[in-house]
Amino acid sequence: MKKFTTVNDIKNLQEIIKKALRIKENPLSESSKGKGKTIGLVFLNSSLRTRLSSQIAAQNLGLNVLTLNAAQEAWNLEFADGAVMNGDTVEHIKDAIEVLNQYCDIIAVRCFAGMKSKEEDVNESILSQFEQHAKVPVISLESATRHPLQSLADCITITENCHEERKPKVVLTWAPHIKPIAHAVGNSFAEWMQEMDVDFVITNPEGYDLDKNFTKDVKVIHNQDEALKDADFIYVKNWSSFDDYAAMPEVKENWMLTNEKLENTNQAKVMHCLPVRRNVELSDEVMDGENSIIYQQAKNRIFSAQAVFSEILDELNSK
Amino acid sequence: MKKFTTVNDIKNLQEIIKKALRIKENPLSESSKGKGKTIGLVFLNSSLRTRLSSQIAAQNLGLNVLTLNAAQEAWNLEFADGAVMNGDTVEHIKDAIEVLNQYCDIIAVRCFAGMKSKEEDVNESILSQFEQHAKVPVISLESATRHPLQSLADCITITENCHEERKPKVVLTWAPHIKPIAHAVGNSFAEWMQEMDVDFVITNPEGYDLDKNFTKDVKVIHNQDEALKDADFIYVKNWSSFDDYAAMPEVKENWMLTNEKLENTNQAKVMHCLPVRRNVELSDEVMDGENSIIYQQAKNRIFSAQAVFSEILDELNSK
Amino acid sequence: MKKFTTVNDIKNLQEIIKKALRIKENPLSESSKGKGKTIGLVFLNSSLRTRLSSQIAAQNLGLNVLTLNAAQEAWNLEFADGAVMNGDTVEHIKDAIEVLNQYCDIIAVRCFAGMKSKEEDVNESILSQFEQHAKVPVISLESATRHPLQSLADCITITENCHEERKPKVVLTWAPHIKPIAHAVGNSFAEWMQEMDVDFVITNPEGYDLDKNFTKDVKVIHNQDEALKDADFIYVKNWSSFDDYAAMPEVKENWMLTNEKLENTNQAKVMHCLPVRRNVELSDEVMDGENSIIYQQAKNRIFSAQAVFSEILDELNSK
Repeated sequence: MKKFTTVNDIKNLQEIIKKALRIKENPLSESSKGKGKTIGLVFLNSSLRTRLSSQIAAQNLGLNVLTLNAAQEAWNLEFADGAVMNGDTVEHIKDAIEVLNQYCDIIAVRCFAGMKSKEEDVNESILSQFEQHAKVPVISLESATRHPLQSLADCITITENCHEERKPKVVLTWAPHIKPIAHAVGNSFAEWMQEMDVDFVITNPEGYDLDKNFTKDVKVIHNQDEALKDADFIYVKNWSSFDDYAAMPEVKENWMLTNEKLENTNQAKVMHCLPVRRNVELSDEVMDGENSIIYQQAKNRIFSAQAVFSEILDELNSK
Repeated sequence: MKKFTTVNDIKNLQEIIKKALRIKENPLSESSKGKGKTIGLVFLNSSLRTRLSSQIAAQNLGLNVLTLNAAQEAWNLEFADGAVMNGDTVEHIKDAIEVLNQYCDIIAVRCFAGMKSKEEDVNESILSQFEQHAKVPVISLESATRHPLQSLADCITITENCHEERKPKVVLTWAPHIKPIAHAVGNSFAEWMQEMDVDFVITNPEGYDLDKNFTKDVKVIHNQDEALKDADFIYVKNWSSFDDYAAMPEVKENWMLTNEKLENTNQAKVMHCLPVRRNVELSDEVMDGENSIIYQQAKNRIFSAQAVFSEILDELNSK
Repeated sequence: MKKFTTVNDIKNLQEIIKKALRIKENPLSESSKGKGKTIGLVFLNSSLRTRLSSQIAAQNLGLNVLTLNAAQEAWNLEFADGAVMNGDTVEHIKDAIEVLNQYCDIIAVRCFAGMKSKEEDVNESILSQFEQHAKVPVISLESATRHPLQSLADCITITENCHEERKPKVVLTWAPHIKPIAHAVGNSFAEWMQEMDVDFVITNPEGYDLDKNFTKDVKVIHNQDEALKDADFIYVKNWSSFDDYAAMPEVKENWMLTNEKLENTNQAKVMHCLPVRRNVELSDEVMDGENSIIYQQAKNRIFSAQAVFSEILDELNSK
């Protein structure tokens, strides 16, 4: 694997899921694979799971880890090409990336959507600079439009919880929120589910359809009850409007997932990428109930990251 | 040892002091005991000594260390049970703890008193959630009412400086400050001294008596000169009123420790947990004088932490 | 080497440059030299290259690394001797340093000029406290008046790019900026170039002459075109006025380095310590052009640090 920013960087999804599950059985099985190599974890935004799971995965592989909280620890970054930097920005992202090229064997970066300009977000104004200027493999720790290490952990978790022969029904449901939230987790989950052997539907209120470039031909149902019927897995996530970018059109029905809504399902397992706003996106009863596999999902972030780092190291070590 | 949040988690105080002193002689004697295990150091508040000494102790034991500055690096946490999270908080502490359960073999946490609500602080509103939800051993790096790793370091330091057969006289003296300060260090020191073979008294101005739940039958003297007489060890620390919670009733006498006040003592050794406000809590002359064992105390934070981590690892490795 | 804060701490500059170049060939050749020893990296200011390159250098030598972002992670520091600490400061720098003495085998510190008081900056009000109170070797990661690890990296880079017998002409040129910038990089470069076998000149607008204590007899030319003529290396850096401390007297000519200005040189290599304000200090075309050796310079920060850490470890290990 030469880089990891979308599902397209994976040659064989089933193979990498199996690999991650083998790593979960024996996390230290490749503990010197990364010896003498350095991964830079660059955070332009907050992180708990991604920060910790990436560090654990890297340590399990014997990689040196450099963590940079770019905003607090380094310099205010300029992102515009050709900018005359006579304002608040002190270092151009291009130069920061070139320096990371000199210091790291792998660069992993978290760069959220700004939620101001649809064009900038859709074009991945920050990640694209890493893809363009990095001379070492780039790994996304969530970008404006995708969160692929989360999605891989989601696929691992679904695989672990599939105990029947038939295809499971997987529903991605919109949830309420109080602020305009990015589309990355929703987009990414939609993209990866299309690569899995599942029946996948999305449900969200009108006005909240995700970008067609990610959802493609996936069925979108605007009635949550109808969508949840017979579901085996329900993925709960909020996002703001994509069409009317970052707007929050009024929603009259109550979309918060509750135990009552689970009754109509096939004892669906409930998933969420975390952090979650309890009693806004999900009720306490669901979060703390037996259907939740949310913490298992969080744990699988380690093995998702470790499988990807390991594949990247295979590529580096083969040179 | 299954957890470490109070002196009650110690089976035999003399034994663990001896163990810490053996570690001080040879800090790398158990350098692979923690191999393949991870300790998460979670800071909800500032830290210098605790941060560094815990990292050194963990590294000396071969533990992987994950440090999380929760406020700056992760998400704004909700602490209220059942909260409808439609405000500023992004992640519930319960969920953060459950995720730490997935990632760490040991969770260590610093969570100061808020100094707003006596009830919340007395009930350890944050640490109690860690004790309730953590599925791995929890270590306090100072909580609302106690600072046990400091107190253990204090016991080690007193032991190192006791060269006579007779019981030493140990005085905990209140010191001036400009802000309402928490009771954790005072409470904890009082609690631990009651387990040591020492004559222990507390001195503070009227209105500043510590919580009886910690001081129990310890003699409290409101006249500092009287209390300091013949002292072998003087522990200097400020705290605000406990009865009139977080208030700072006026104090007319000068309680700042000076060389003059030491004259009446048995060449008392002076202790402080640091950070100290020079020339407010203690004079420069005392801080920089021959009676101070304050930096030795700071150094012993390493061996205090390492002895505790080692005991916790014994428990984990025996499973 | 007992400490490293100026060029005077180097016994033989050519030897240490050679050592750094050997390390660059084989960075892991001394990978257990620092085993069981701890370096504390204390940042009182922002850092990207220094932070990451110091960590890599330390890891390459097997050192344990403790990083402390003092302002954000620990306590607000007092710097004034004898201060009555009844204001905003919580811990005296003396006490923080004494604690670091207990925890670290080497202390490295970044402490920029405050740019308020010429006297405080010239007297190195912060670094001098480390030099006075540290009982272990002190390494400057840039102080008020010098940036020696940068200067050593600059010497390494110039050495790598000298392919002719004759002495190269090296020009330090002032560049425009929008804020009053410290003199540390300029001072330091001037100081180190006087130890190298090069023809060295400085060019800056009138009113911007650096401190004579650093530039000594080096020729200062106020006409940039004249200075750049036949240059082999051009070091670009802004600084504010030293005489009228931190002022920014008006400059009428355009001092930003462009390709046009390079025409008059001997295909000069262009250097900058980074971060750089593009199109203010340097044009994009120079930054991204073939003459730039700026990223190579950034990479050499690793080997500069590693050579110095290695020399310090030789001293420690010989005790």
